[in-house]
Amino acid sequence: MKRNPLFFNVSEKYLFHEVKTRVEAFKKSHPDAQIISLGIGDTTKPLAPTISNALQEIGQGMGTSQGYKGYGPELGLVELREKIIKTLYPQISWLDSDEVFISDGAKSDIGRLQILFGDTTPVALQEPSYPAYFDSSLMIRQKRPITLSCVPTPNGTSRLLLDTLPKGSLVFICSPNNPTGTVFTRSELKEYIEISKMNGHILVFDVAYREYILEGSDLPRSIYEIPGAEEVAIEVGSFSKSCGFSGIRLGWTVVPKALRYADGHSVNKDFTRLITTLFNGASYISQKAGIIALSEQGRKETLEQVSLYKESTKKLKKALLERGAKVYGGDHAPYVWVEIDTLTGWSSFDYFLSKAHIVTTPGIGFGPSGEKFLRMSGFARSDDIDESINRILKLNLRNPIE
Amino acid sequence: MKRNPLFFNVSEKYLFHEVKTRVEAFKKSHPDAQIISLGIGDTTKPLAPTISNALQEIGQGMGTSQGYKGYGPELGLVELREKIIKTLYPQISWLDSDEVFISDGAKSDIGRLQILFGDTTPVALQEPSYPAYFDSSLMIRQKRPITLSCVPTPNGTSRLLLDTLPKGSLVFICSPNNPTGTVFTRSELKEYIEISKMNGHILVFDVAYREYILEGSDLPRSIYEIPGAEEVAIEVGSFSKSCGFSGIRLGWTVVPKALRYADGHSVNKDFTRLITTLFNGASYISQKAGIIALSEQGRKETLEQVSLYKESTKKLKKALLERGAKVYGGDHAPYVWVEIDTLTGWSSFDYFLSKAHIVTTPGIGFGPSGEKFLRMSGFARSDDIDESINRILKLNLRNPIE
Repeated sequence: MKRNPLFFNVSEKYLFHEVKTRVEAFKKSHPDAQIISLGIGDTTKPLAPTISNALQEIGQGMGTSQGYKGYGPELGLVELREKIIKTLYPQISWLDSDEVFISDGAKSDIGRLQILFGDTTPVALQEPSYPAYFDSSLMIRQKRPITLSCVPTPNGTSRLLLDTLPKGSLVFICSPNNPTGTVFTRSELKEYIEISKMNGHILVFDVAYREYILEGSDLPRSIYEIPGAEEVAIEVGSFSKSCGFSGIRLGWTVVPKALRYADGHSVNKDFTRLITTLFNGASYISQKAGIIALSEQGRKETLEQVSLYKESTKKLKKALLERGAKVYGGDHAPYVWVEIDTLTGWSSFDYFLSKAHIVTTPGIGFGPSGEKFLRMSGFARSDDIDESINRILKLNLRNPIE
Repeated sequence: MKRNPLFFNVSEKYLFHEVKTRVEAFKKSHPDAQIISLGIGDTTKPLAPTISNALQEIGQGMGTSQGYKGYGPELGLVELREKIIKTLYPQISWLDSDEVFISDGAKSDIGRLQILFGDTTPVALQEPSYPAYFDSSLMIRQKRPITLSCVPTPNGTSRLLLDTLPKGSLVFICSPNNPTGTVFTRSELKEYIEISKMNGHILVFDVAYREYILEGSDLPRSIYEIPGAEEVAIEVGSFSKSCGFSGIRLGWTVVPKALRYADGHSVNKDFTRLITTLFNGASYISQKAGIIALSEQGRKETLEQVSLYKESTKKLKKALLERGAKVYGGDHAPYVWVEIDTLTGWSSFDYFLSKAHIVTTPGIGFGPSGEKFLRMSGFARSDDIDESINRILKLNLRNPIE
């Protein structure tokens, strides 16, 4: 059999896999180093008590005739879909439960959306961004995605040039952004929606970090807060970063019925067909845990954890600024985006690993505009954050010597 | 945006979705009918006690700093991969843990394998078979899959004509087969492997029902029991039917390193890259439960449940034969494949629904060769099986009157 020619286009290693490989190599040559990871954005706090207790009950129930569940609906438990609407989209009056699809995490649904739109649709993506958008596109279409550079500078964040794209493009954007930590404002989104409407684009709006937007801020947590978005946008969400579900695997995708192809066909209908064919639903246990996570007590406990991660990120940002780095993000996101003069590409990654035994993620891994940056995550354990700060405070980030 | 043209090729409803719709309609017009489902192949027995207990412990642990887990390896926990090898492939000496990929179920990995081989690879499949093979192929390639008819007859099961396929085909086969319940013998598989080797085919061998092969039988539970299979075959497995994990979501896929494309590229390497891009691992909870399910006690308890499902299937088969139906399968599979003269297509489905209030699955839903058949599942609750048998014994299946 011939190899799938598309795989010649994919770089051999996925970003975080490459990070892991480099760290392993460093550990081998420095067996005594106390390495702290501020690399991959993975939650570290134990599950909230309400959720842990619920999991025990679900596990017990699955061992009884009354509580046992086999296959559920491929689209997800209706109770969870309704709970998501009630809790996370209270102001979106048009949203119905068959517009909410439960996934085993945003990454899987990003891949499934690539299949939905097929190999002839032009794809674009905000850059720097989560590498899965780019790589998953390479796996199903010959044409490379168009990258829309969008970097924070001391004078603000550059605009997404959606009007330069071919008509009818599929565009992946993420807000709060991973890795830069910047958030699109209402007026920016309004403009992007208008341009998309005029050009027949469909936006895939990733809100994995929505809970990191500060309370009381007017920044939108969902693209549907802007009227008309339901005609141009799909929204992808995740329980990973807001509830510590990165290991439990749960997310959702909103595909509004108002979203139509040029010929009037319903995108929601095609996605429903795709999900019933390529997926058999998220784990029943994860879904039941998700319902609890969205209960009043679950919300209270999980949002407290989010606050603590935000606190860590803020402290990290302060230390980095103090030592002379330029730092973006970190206010409405669990990530800081760090610029250090003279260090580019993997060299800033290697610098922090060798000088401070801190694992970061090189900005270049998120796209070419990330070359001068690196990302640090505030998801580490509090003691690791404190120790990282001690180490950072010993560095000279204005004139780093490699 | 233009609609993905491939979706014009996909029938609007997935088989089991259509079954559900017909049953709902019948319920509305017959609100008092006591409907029993022998339709979808879904397990009904509560989780084995060892697994239910383990789930409670895992849930409790996830609420502690020591027990909490975030992202795991995309390919799955090494402990689970090793346990699968030790328990399910003890005789396969070449099999290494990085040839075993943990999935959230066979259906998801079937979709991911379609992507792996790309849109220009010719696809073929045993027919009748699980509809996801066919439908998932339609979603990523223009060319329809070639169907290889393979039906049981009173004189044995017809041969798969693998030598008639274009060179380098991807072929989906399933043994024990869903829906017909037949199992390929060692000599049949040996022949299929030889033909595949000569023609550059890759076989995807689905063993979701492997535990239903009777103890002591010489029928192969894995294609790798036949030497040389590692050069031509991928094997897809599932915890759903053997451990009652249909709601928990767990499976595995073996992609041997010996499997190579014509140019020498490793299929395993491409699949690894695909999995790290399109998937973030199965739920940690499901994986830990899988490890317990493969422990000595877990095996004992789950295989006891399998025995009870087999017992039910056997009783069902006996009753159907007694009333004059032709019945295949049911010996090494949880399904019986029923042929009733004069009833074809959806009419046999409608017959059982209206005359006995029993939900079945029409054979036609598994492919054109299934037209004269229907599938009944032995997975129902024991009391439902007994009541179904009472009702079947009142039918005249030699001369059914619609």
